[in-house]
Amino acid sequence: MTQLESARRGEITPQMLAVAKEEGMDPEILRQHIAQGTAIIPANKNHRGLQPKGIGQGLRTKVNANVGTSSDFPDINKEVEKAKAAARAGADTIMDLSTGGDIDRARIAIRDATPLPLGTVPIYQAAIEAMRRHGHLAKMKEEELFEVIERHARDGVDFITVHCGVTLESIRRLQEQGRLTDIVSRGGALLNCWMVRNGKENPLYSRFDRLLEIAAEYDLTLSLGDGLRPGCLADATDRAQIQELIILGELVERAWAAGVQVMVEGPGHVPLDQIEANIKLQKRLCRGAPFYVLGPLVTDVAPGYDHITAAIGGALAAAAGADYICYVTPAEHLGLPTAEEVKEGVIAARIAGHAADLVKGIPGAWAWDQQMAKERKALHWDRQIELSIDPEKAARYRKERHPALENTCTMCGEFCAMKITSELG
Amino acid sequence: MTQLESARRGEITPQMLAVAKEEGMDPEILRQHIAQGTAIIPANKNHRGLQPKGIGQGLRTKVNANVGTSSDFPDINKEVEKAKAAARAGADTIMDLSTGGDIDRARIAIRDATPLPLGTVPIYQAAIEAMRRHGHLAKMKEEELFEVIERHARDGVDFITVHCGVTLESIRRLQEQGRLTDIVSRGGALLNCWMVRNGKENPLYSRFDRLLEIAAEYDLTLSLGDGLRPGCLADATDRAQIQELIILGELVERAWAAGVQVMVEGPGHVPLDQIEANIKLQKRLCRGAPFYVLGPLVTDVAPGYDHITAAIGGALAAAAGADYICYVTPAEHLGLPTAEEVKEGVIAARIAGHAADLVKGIPGAWAWDQQMAKERKALHWDRQIELSIDPEKAARYRKERHPALENTCTMCGEFCAMKITSELG
Repeated sequence: MTQLESARRGEITPQMLAVAKEEGMDPEILRQHIAQGTAIIPANKNHRGLQPKGIGQGLRTKVNANVGTSSDFPDINKEVEKAKAAARAGADTIMDLSTGGDIDRARIAIRDATPLPLGTVPIYQAAIEAMRRHGHLAKMKEEELFEVIERHARDGVDFITVHCGVTLESIRRLQEQGRLTDIVSRGGALLNCWMVRNGKENPLYSRFDRLLEIAAEYDLTLSLGDGLRPGCLADATDRAQIQELIILGELVERAWAAGVQVMVEGPGHVPLDQIEANIKLQKRLCRGAPFYVLGPLVTDVAPGYDHITAAIGGALAAAAGADYICYVTPAEHLGLPTAEEVKEGVIAARIAGHAADLVKGIPGAWAWDQQMAKERKALHWDRQIELSIDPEKAARYRKERHPALENTCTMCGEFCAMKITSELG
Repeated sequence: MTQLESARRGEITPQMLAVAKEEGMDPEILRQHIAQGTAIIPANKNHRGLQPKGIGQGLRTKVNANVGTSSDFPDINKEVEKAKAAARAGADTIMDLSTGGDIDRARIAIRDATPLPLGTVPIYQAAIEAMRRHGHLAKMKEEELFEVIERHARDGVDFITVHCGVTLESIRRLQEQGRLTDIVSRGGALLNCWMVRNGKENPLYSRFDRLLEIAAEYDLTLSLGDGLRPGCLADATDRAQIQELIILGELVERAWAAGVQVMVEGPGHVPLDQIEANIKLQKRLCRGAPFYVLGPLVTDVAPGYDHITAAIGGALAAAAGADYICYVTPAEHLGLPTAEEVKEGVIAARIAGHAADLVKGIPGAWAWDQQMAKERKALHWDRQIELSIDPEKAARYRKERHPALENTCTMCGEFCAMKITSELG
């Protein structure tokens, strides 16, 4: 039985109890949200030692960190280190997007690096194996794709991105409207290539029931990918993107009918003033299924700083109702991130999520900020550092520029507003 | 004659022409906005070599960088280097907030470091001189404060922060409502201390006409400071803050009546869902006077990353109508920033401003992002780097992880979505 099926039967599973405890939430309320599909707990039956996390209604906004090998950097150990760095920085889930070297081994190693839920994108491996086996990804047999998905499920992967909404219909609309950056999702591009070369429908759509069978068996959560997400501001919220979202909404209902947990992925690159509309649209078209956003980046011009462009968009999106943020690192659009950049990306996304949780009414969010404010007023520097989202960095900054007066800092010194005002009594 | 007075007479000054040219704007429209007070050009008559900048209605969102000595770090050369770093990173204005060492010499050196408009906060120097001269800042004579203001004006300072709204009335309201972090503005704290010790009204309020005389003589723009701005999320948008804003709105009208250019400063620490209301309120209470925001920071818990918490709030504020963003560096709440942190702060604030300019309809904002999107699609890496908000950083990231395939990057390598899709023809 999946978490969804258990919840519908009124059963509170150990995973629900663990999540409710972490969130400071009534387990029965959580169960109801899971039964409705507005919250999920990606927890593959084969993932031993999993620390389960809840995503969706009433829950703290979650942060995902992507790691994984590429053809240029196939070293698995480096990616394991990045997964650990992400977990230390407070990521809630890890996705393994490996496309280089031994992908099966990378997945197991990354799964075992942390107790966090693990996500993957099986189409990557399926395409690579088709290239290696048949010489071209277009020669991938449909069943080979499902075989890879089943392999991931057997390995205990908790959720997979499946770009089921990249269909003949949504691609036709994309081509008719035209775009500056066409398809920028790797999975979307691979599937589109396969579809064009074979003149066939996307097997993840035409054989969605096959996918549901595998998902139901392992309680593998489906993350319905946005293969047609905009790759630049000018392409945001176009007919292709919304056509795909409509299709994903239909598939959400089919997943629920099969007892399969499901969430929906969203953009991408979106101007500030379209973000709220995107979230409301997803919530309506997908009947409140959890929304997992990849950014959104609010400008295209800041490579090297896309953790910041994404934090701006992510905060807005989460405040408007997005449930889960995929981190973006400073290396986005330029190359694979280092472990240090992974950390920076996780912290930036956590800031966005927390800023949103403060206005979403998530239990405990305000208490953190209020405690920090009190320690600032009291000039308790050690406590301020402990309470920081990244105590290691805050401590280092403070130490590097230690002030002459112990209870001030080097910005204002004796002209500390807190100090002057407190001394008035 | 001030820019405001010239504009009212229908005269387009050389400064208006320069600003209109930089903005790609009709000089006559700019003149009208300046005549109405909804745009300003801080340009002291004594500031030779000034590259004038416009702030306000219809203009690109501007970014200020604070530099200046402190008692712990009195080295002027370091602050000159930071001013130059800020200008190189694209700051529009520099504020000298020096409080350590030879403050007069620091001001001249920082003024001469760049051609950008210069702002200062004279109360800092007035308080320090009172301490040195009389043993305590509370012993500052009212006329000594105005003497320092006049000294700054003579030196060609283009705008000064004056906390005129910290009055007996607004402070009473602050005390009655209570706060977690009380007064966190340095200028606000100094003036409050002076007022309490002397049992007198704030001279910047009681003698506002004296201030206007000096400002009119030099065309010194007044930046009406928010001395009671919230220092934590829990204190945001409270009665003290809004009482001060009401008073500042009244003073805006008195400045306009005296032909003096004026803007208004705003918070601070503000939850995401209160930012738009804060901007709308300022625009209404202050009759459209330009709004200069200090953040807003959307959470209190991220010291070490407050350039990000401020970029989130700044983007939202600017999109809602704020005109001018004061940068926040990663060192905020921990100490005085280094030159590298100054650069990071400027870029983060520029990202926020540009993300807002895209939705404010500022001419040229969209063209930049669209060009970047086209170069991404074409896999023109050198052009992408040139177009980046920080080409030096983008180039370094790319070089550090150079891919095997020249036209891809190390994240996706041969699985580049752009490449796969383009090759389909």
